[in-house]
Amino acid sequence: MKIQVAIIGGGPSGLLLSQLLHVRGIETIVLEKHSRDHVLERIRAGVLEHGFADLMRKAQCGDRMDAEGEIHHGFYIARNNRKYRVDLSGQTDGNSVVVYGQTEVTRDLYEARDRMNGTVLHDVKDVELHDVTSAAPHLTFLSNGDRKRIDCDFIVGADGFHGVSRKSIPADVLKEYEKVYPFGWLGVLSRTKPVSPELIYAASPRGFALCSLRSQVLSRYYIQVPLSDSAEDWSDEAFWAELKRRLPDEVSSNLITGASIEKSIAPLRSYVAEPMRYGNLFLAGDAAHIFPPTGARGLNSAASDIHYLYEGFVDHYLNGDSTGLDAYSDRALARVWKAQRFSWMMTSMLHSFDGENSYDRRLRKVELDYLLSSAKAQAALAENYVGLPY
Amino acid sequence: MKIQVAIIGGGPSGLLLSQLLHVRGIETIVLEKHSRDHVLERIRAGVLEHGFADLMRKAQCGDRMDAEGEIHHGFYIARNNRKYRVDLSGQTDGNSVVVYGQTEVTRDLYEARDRMNGTVLHDVKDVELHDVTSAAPHLTFLSNGDRKRIDCDFIVGADGFHGVSRKSIPADVLKEYEKVYPFGWLGVLSRTKPVSPELIYAASPRGFALCSLRSQVLSRYYIQVPLSDSAEDWSDEAFWAELKRRLPDEVSSNLITGASIEKSIAPLRSYVAEPMRYGNLFLAGDAAHIFPPTGARGLNSAASDIHYLYEGFVDHYLNGDSTGLDAYSDRALARVWKAQRFSWMMTSMLHSFDGENSYDRRLRKVELDYLLSSAKAQAALAENYVGLPY
Repeated sequence: MKIQVAIIGGGPSGLLLSQLLHVRGIETIVLEKHSRDHVLERIRAGVLEHGFADLMRKAQCGDRMDAEGEIHHGFYIARNNRKYRVDLSGQTDGNSVVVYGQTEVTRDLYEARDRMNGTVLHDVKDVELHDVTSAAPHLTFLSNGDRKRIDCDFIVGADGFHGVSRKSIPADVLKEYEKVYPFGWLGVLSRTKPVSPELIYAASPRGFALCSLRSQVLSRYYIQVPLSDSAEDWSDEAFWAELKRRLPDEVSSNLITGASIEKSIAPLRSYVAEPMRYGNLFLAGDAAHIFPPTGARGLNSAASDIHYLYEGFVDHYLNGDSTGLDAYSDRALARVWKAQRFSWMMTSMLHSFDGENSYDRRLRKVELDYLLSSAKAQAALAENYVGLPY
Repeated sequence: MKIQVAIIGGGPSGLLLSQLLHVRGIETIVLEKHSRDHVLERIRAGVLEHGFADLMRKAQCGDRMDAEGEIHHGFYIARNNRKYRVDLSGQTDGNSVVVYGQTEVTRDLYEARDRMNGTVLHDVKDVELHDVTSAAPHLTFLSNGDRKRIDCDFIVGADGFHGVSRKSIPADVLKEYEKVYPFGWLGVLSRTKPVSPELIYAASPRGFALCSLRSQVLSRYYIQVPLSDSAEDWSDEAFWAELKRRLPDEVSSNLITGASIEKSIAPLRSYVAEPMRYGNLFLAGDAAHIFPPTGARGLNSAASDIHYLYEGFVDHYLNGDSTGLDAYSDRALARVWKAQRFSWMMTSMLHSFDGENSYDRRLRKVELDYLLSSAKAQAALAENYVGLPY
């Protein structure tokens, strides 16, 4: 079997690319290690840059997002028992974000792939990449117990942090950058009306908290916890009580609590691998970079990779011009690093860090003081939050 | 002898306050440990916020500054053999800074004090503060070998980091915050035409460099050096050679070198003491806070303290309203901390730091990438550089 672009990974990055290329007549296949149900069970991000939303529309699967997603023109930062609104639209010439769960994005992409008879192979095991530095790379894998082979022009590794793609790049080529944080986020999903129509990022002396949502009937709340905690340590009651302590009274008094339908702890990590191209292998999304969740850069940065890849493949196949593909790694990384900068700034400014000296601790607090006092600082924050230009 | 406000320290802070209060009919005395010549020999900062310039005018000693000082509407940041201009005026509704040496500021203030018959006692030794928490504090000191006493309503400690004033605050009251940097600035003053009419901050892989000036015939250049270096290690030739390596070709090829008339290494440090008021003692300037020189916040933050103190004393003596004096510590510290934030950001973004991991090193570089790519980020930087509102 011969295909133009073989995509490893059936998460939102791989599916979005497959869908975008299909619309332009470029043939792809998507190989996914897990079942579709497994992929759709992942609870992940929910704040989409408007550039991401545009890509979904361009991929002809933005209808449900436009009907059910919520446009957010701002968010709140809470501190010292008060909340302050950051006016995203006012600070960015009307720009905004769309609140629409990653699960829904993935579902829409699968439905679009089905509708267009796209090939997505699930439960694919033991994927191996061959001859990626040649003009004729190929993949081998196990599917339903059979060893299969796909020949292709290009391989896209959108198989996440633990995937095989990045591991196929020789260690002396790959440079890795990493920062590990001394805390995690305990997240709870509940079928309750969100306490606020817009997100609230709370910097409390007890630690960070976030009031987020997936829809007006599905709330997502988080609190910063030590890495030594486990989700089982936290009863629902204990979670709600601690969350309330970290929010302004005007917020906590209106908080509607309910049974958690998902509860888990995610560690926070920043990671970038360079380069994002090796021969005819292109990395995208979590395969190349991990973001702490603060500021919602993970899924959005995956989408910016897909944007650059999409344009590169279109130019290559439709216009015979490979400059876009050749520039992919540099372009994608330039934007990824700016997003890393932003997520570090948000994480640093809003969380409590143990073990640092009093000067550094105070400086974090002052970063927030300055932000809340300066329209110019809020404008810079806003342009990052809605997404820097591609 | 009884006076309204006794000021310890005859540097620019103490003199400016004395002059401002005199104009409003409030009596002061200034006690200075060193001779006037010694004070005037100090080579220090040279970039004044426009708010500082306004205070000089209000103190009736702005004429020479307005005649000889240079208005700067922007500065340059250099990196990767290119320079980029930050448009201070364009980003701040026409705001700017004045380049005028601290030595000249001090000279003008002394001349104004002489003109108005203000009392500045020099070579004053062994100053002691008494009863500062009472309504009737007093100072004792040695002057010309005689023990003297001054009774006053208030004492202002503008006697620098090593002065006696801050040390008079009990250790259980005073909170100290400090950050020490693993490098210093080697500075050279030369009677040469500056290489650029506006300052150039250069972030080179070899370390930071700064092209500054005091006038169009007096240049001030700096390079980041390890703390283990001493000024004697650096010949003029070695200094100029290293400076050139850190500048873009278009700058270094135009650099006019000459004999150094001053050469010294200053360590970089950030320090803040809280509170800035204890009883009827008020700290101002370096007595309460030290800044790394990057971004020129030291002298300007001293001036903002003087602004708040001046308004407080005027309200107290002329309007019988002490709310300004009562709010002094909080107000001054709020602005000091924002200036600390800014000087840390500038220092962090422009210098090379040893011993940090590759992620953190990259993040510094990205901070600068983002700044140079974003008008909004430059606007936030500019409002700090010209001085946040009092």
